[in-house]
Amino acid sequence: MKTITIQPSAQFYFGENLLQSSLLSDLCKQMGGRPIIVTTPALKDLYPLPIKADLIELPDNAKNKTTQEYLENALFKLGAGKDTILIALGGGVITDLVGFVASIYLRGVSLILIPTTLLAIVDATIGGKTAIDTPLGKNLIGTFYPAHAIIADLDTLKTLPEKEWLNGLAEILKIGLVLDPSIWELAKKNPKSKELIEKAIEGKMAVVEKDPKEKGFRRILNFGHTIGHALEAVSHYALSHGEAVAIGSIAEAHLSMHLGYLKQEDFQEIQIPYSAFPLQLPKNYNKAAFLKALSHDKKKVGAQVRCVLIDAIGHALPFDGEYCRPISEKELEVTLDWMEKKYG
Amino acid sequence: MKTITIQPSAQFYFGENLLQSSLLSDLCKQMGGRPIIVTTPALKDLYPLPIKADLIELPDNAKNKTTQEYLENALFKLGAGKDTILIALGGGVITDLVGFVASIYLRGVSLILIPTTLLAIVDATIGGKTAIDTPLGKNLIGTFYPAHAIIADLDTLKTLPEKEWLNGLAEILKIGLVLDPSIWELAKKNPKSKELIEKAIEGKMAVVEKDPKEKGFRRILNFGHTIGHALEAVSHYALSHGEAVAIGSIAEAHLSMHLGYLKQEDFQEIQIPYSAFPLQLPKNYNKAAFLKALSHDKKKVGAQVRCVLIDAIGHALPFDGEYCRPISEKELEVTLDWMEKKYG
Repeated sequence: MKTITIQPSAQFYFGENLLQSSLLSDLCKQMGGRPIIVTTPALKDLYPLPIKADLIELPDNAKNKTTQEYLENALFKLGAGKDTILIALGGGVITDLVGFVASIYLRGVSLILIPTTLLAIVDATIGGKTAIDTPLGKNLIGTFYPAHAIIADLDTLKTLPEKEWLNGLAEILKIGLVLDPSIWELAKKNPKSKELIEKAIEGKMAVVEKDPKEKGFRRILNFGHTIGHALEAVSHYALSHGEAVAIGSIAEAHLSMHLGYLKQEDFQEIQIPYSAFPLQLPKNYNKAAFLKALSHDKKKVGAQVRCVLIDAIGHALPFDGEYCRPISEKELEVTLDWMEKKYG
Repeated sequence: MKTITIQPSAQFYFGENLLQSSLLSDLCKQMGGRPIIVTTPALKDLYPLPIKADLIELPDNAKNKTTQEYLENALFKLGAGKDTILIALGGGVITDLVGFVASIYLRGVSLILIPTTLLAIVDATIGGKTAIDTPLGKNLIGTFYPAHAIIADLDTLKTLPEKEWLNGLAEILKIGLVLDPSIWELAKKNPKSKELIEKAIEGKMAVVEKDPKEKGFRRILNFGHTIGHALEAVSHYALSHGEAVAIGSIAEAHLSMHLGYLKQEDFQEIQIPYSAFPLQLPKNYNKAAFLKALSHDKKKVGAQVRCVLIDAIGHALPFDGEYCRPISEKELEVTLDWMEKKYG
C-alpha cells in the first residue's frame, strides 16, 4: 500500500487488497462518527466492506437531482447527524454525487471515497471536485469539498470492462500531454500498468496541490475537455467521457499545432496511443449545435471560449498564469473542419 | 459608515446611505467580474442600486429547490461564468438562497450580500451559513460560504414591518442571553436603537470568528433554536422565526433553571423584554409531533437531542467545549408542561 497526502488534509491510499483489510474501519474509528456506505446494489454485492455501517443503495447510476434528493431523504430517514461519515463506493458518478451531498447535507459531513473505476481512481476522486448534472449540463452544479480519505484498491480494476479502461486512459493520456512526458512513454509501452496509474495519480495530485481551487494552473487538466465536453453534450451523453476526451485532446492538440505552438511531428506522435479508442463523432453532430454547447464552457470569461494549449508532449502553455487562451470561432474553424473530416 | 472585517475575508459595511453611494460599484470594480443582482420585483423597485448589472428577479420569496433551480437556470441563460459576482438584495430568505447557489454554481462564484431586514443584518448574513429548505425541513441543505462583502444599510429598516422587527429582535436577545449582558440592558432601554444593532452584529461576529465551522463555541448561537425550530416545524412554518425563537429562548432558559444552572430571579428577568412578542404556541401543537420534530435537530449526536444552556444572562455553559448538553425526554418534560400551560 502506498499513502500519498494531498492538501488540505486528504489521504490517498493506493494498493492491492485494501478493501478486505481493516483500513476503512480503522479510519472511521480514528475519525469518530457514524459510517454510512452509499453505493449501488451491484457494487454492494461485489465489494462487501468489512465494517459495521448503515447502507444506502442508490436507485440508479445517475448523478442528477433526483438521485441527489433520494440520497438526502435516505440520510434524513436514517436520522444521520453531523457526525456522519459518508462512504462512497463506486465510479466517478457515485463519488461525485456522494461528495456533493456530503458538502451540502447539514452544511457538510465527513467523506471517504472508494473509487472502483480507473477514471475515478486517476481523476474523479482527486482534488475535491464534486458535482451533479442538471438539465442544463454536466457538472454545472458542484462544490470543492476534499474527502477525508480516498481508498483506491487496484483489485477493483480486475473486472473493469474495456470501455471503462478507456475512460480512465483518456484522462491518463491527458495528464501526460499537459504535464509529464514520461506518462506518455509508459502509456505506449503498457496502458494498463500499475506504474502508469501511479504516475497519473501523482501527476494530478501535484497539479491540484499547487492550485486547489482552479484559479490558474489547475486549468491545464481541462485540456481536451473544452471540445470534449461540447461533443458529449451534443451527443446527449451517448458518447462516453473517455471517447469525448480522446477526440477533444487530439483536436485541441491540432488546434495547438494550427495556432503555431506545437510541432507537426509532435501532433503525429500524439495520435498514436489513441488508436485503442473508437474515434467517431456522435451521430447527431452538427457544427451549429456543437458551437452552442461550446459557448457554455466553464472556463469562459465574458463571451469568449478559452482553451488549454500545449507546445510539446508534457507541457501546457502558461499564458501569463491563465493556462488557457481565448479562442475565436475563426481560429477554431480549421480544427473543426479537420475533426469532422477525420472522425465524422 | 463602519467597516468590520470578519474572517476569513468578508467585509461588513454598516451605516446609513450606503445603497445610494458608490460602495457597491467600487467593490465590484475592485473584485473584477460581472455583477448580477438577485432580488424580488418589489425590492428591485424599492432599492434601485447605482450599478450597471444584470438583474434576476426571483419568482417568489422562498428558499426551496424550485427557487434554487429557477436561479440556476437564470444564471445559465445569462451565460454567467466563473467571473460572476452574485449580489443578493433582500431578507434572510434571499441572502441564504443566493448564498447557497453562489456556493454551488460552477463550484462557487463571488458573493455580495445586501440584507434589507433586521434579521438578515444581525443574523443571516453574518458567518457564512447558506441554506435552502426541503420538504424534509428548514436549512437541512446548505454550505459554509462566506460572502466577499456585506452591505448593511440601516435606511432599509425604516420601512420594516413590526413583525420583521421582532424576527430580528429575537436573535438580538438571544445573542444577549448567551454572550453579552450589555445587549440585554440596551434592549430593555430601546429595542430599536442603532447601538443595540451594532452590539448584536459585533457579538455574532466575535462568536463566528472564534469558531467559523461550528465545531463547538459557535453552537451557543443555537440557544432557543432547539425548541424554536421544532415549534416552527410543528406549525408548518405558520409561526414566524422570531416568535418561535422567542418562545424557544424562554423555554430553554426555563430548562436551564429546571436543571439547576440558572437562578429563578434571572429566569424572571429574562421574560421581560419578550413582552413585545405574541407568545402563543401554534394551533396544531401537540407533544408527540413536537418531539418528533425535535428528533431532527442538527446538533443531535447519535439518538440524543442536545440543548445550549445558560447559567446567567450573557453566559452559555461550555460543557467541555461542546457548548451544548444531551437532554433526555424526561428532563424536558417539566419545561414542556410549563410551556404548554403558559403559551398553549
